[in-house]
Amino acid sequence: MFITFEGIEGTGKSTQILKVKEYFESKGREVLLTLEPGGSRIGQELRKMLLHVDNDDITPITELFLYLADRAQHVAQVIRPALEEGKVVLCDRFADSTVVYQGYGRGIDTATLQHLNEVAVDSMWPDLTILLDIDPEIGLKRATLRNLEEGKAKEEGRFEAEHISFHNRIREGYQTWAALNKDRIKSISANGTPDEVFDGIKSLIEAFPSHDKAAESLQKE
Amino acid sequence: MFITFEGIEGTGKSTQILKVKEYFESKGREVLLTLEPGGSRIGQELRKMLLHVDNDDITPITELFLYLADRAQHVAQVIRPALEEGKVVLCDRFADSTVVYQGYGRGIDTATLQHLNEVAVDSMWPDLTILLDIDPEIGLKRATLRNLEEGKAKEEGRFEAEHISFHNRIREGYQTWAALNKDRIKSISANGTPDEVFDGIKSLIEAFPSHDKAAESLQKE
Repeated sequence: MFITFEGIEGTGKSTQILKVKEYFESKGREVLLTLEPGGSRIGQELRKMLLHVDNDDITPITELFLYLADRAQHVAQVIRPALEEGKVVLCDRFADSTVVYQGYGRGIDTATLQHLNEVAVDSMWPDLTILLDIDPEIGLKRATLRNLEEGKAKEEGRFEAEHISFHNRIREGYQTWAALNKDRIKSISANGTPDEVFDGIKSLIEAFPSHDKAAESLQKE
Repeated sequence: MFITFEGIEGTGKSTQILKVKEYFESKGREVLLTLEPGGSRIGQELRKMLLHVDNDDITPITELFLYLADRAQHVAQVIRPALEEGKVVLCDRFADSTVVYQGYGRGIDTATLQHLNEVAVDSMWPDLTILLDIDPEIGLKRATLRNLEEGKAKEEGRFEAEHISFHNRIREGYQTWAALNKDRIKSISANGTPDEVFDGIKSLIEAFPSHDKAAESLQKE
């Protein structure tokens, strides 16, 4: 099972992904936790390039191709092999981020983006995408606080440094894109406590027919 | 005027580009000499990544997107501004390399590649593309000799290290692609002496109506 997590900064994605990981492990499943950009060795180098504040001269089209390069390598070297080994793959951001950030955020045509994603993803679409939704004002406050607490390097703040109107466009873009892909992308409010939010996610996962395949096959043995 | 130079390794592209630069300068034109990958600051980082022998785990699709990222940045930051300033731009490899190496070389669909090129090139197609054609056996001998003479870093030899059958596919790919784009791409044999080859290139440039625009407008003043 391949699950991706999407949403603006400060929705608590990382916290929720860890909870989902524990959930699957408690059912005896092996879990691979990964992220974009940066899920492969080459991807790590691309992540540094993409998120470094000094690289504000990267054009929107260049940025797009760098994210796609990261994704192609990630799918081929990390995601596909893990799924073939029967692991649950949980990925922090994936193809939908490209459509939303580069399309609704930067104004590139979303149909072109989806076509490019198809080249990069190479048929490896998620079974389920969880969109954590929050008001950008609240999200950015959370993200800033987290960065301070973690002493996170300032260089990784290129997206946080964007104007609030950009983050509002991103949030709306996510909602529009989720509505267009409602069989796969499920939106959940990230306003509650971590446990409240996780309860919502758990219901989505448990509604998914194959979520418990490994556990079932173990019981049959 | 925007001229690109294509061909396999060892055709003498670099030598010819310098001759073309001198030719235009002797006519009073300002010339920008550039290359792919690596024509922009970000492109330099991508070039290192693409050509390093240790990166042989880069998948064909990842490689493709990295070349496209390099190209998009190169067009936006280097080529378009230079042309707008009235310079002649001479570029060592451009969009056709992607179609030929990733398409005919690595087996990616050439129509998809051309579509991706259109996103990266953003309407900035060359006025003229000079394809230097040589037997790969001769070309690779020349390239190996040059690398030894220049003490060129071994790490940049990822393409030279490919099997001869790959280079034969590339040469044939160039010929097929040139036939499909015969208004823009002109093939010239690279078997002669540098001066003989340059004479052929000069005829092509002089047949091009706008090659002498700046000189003409200077004469009118």
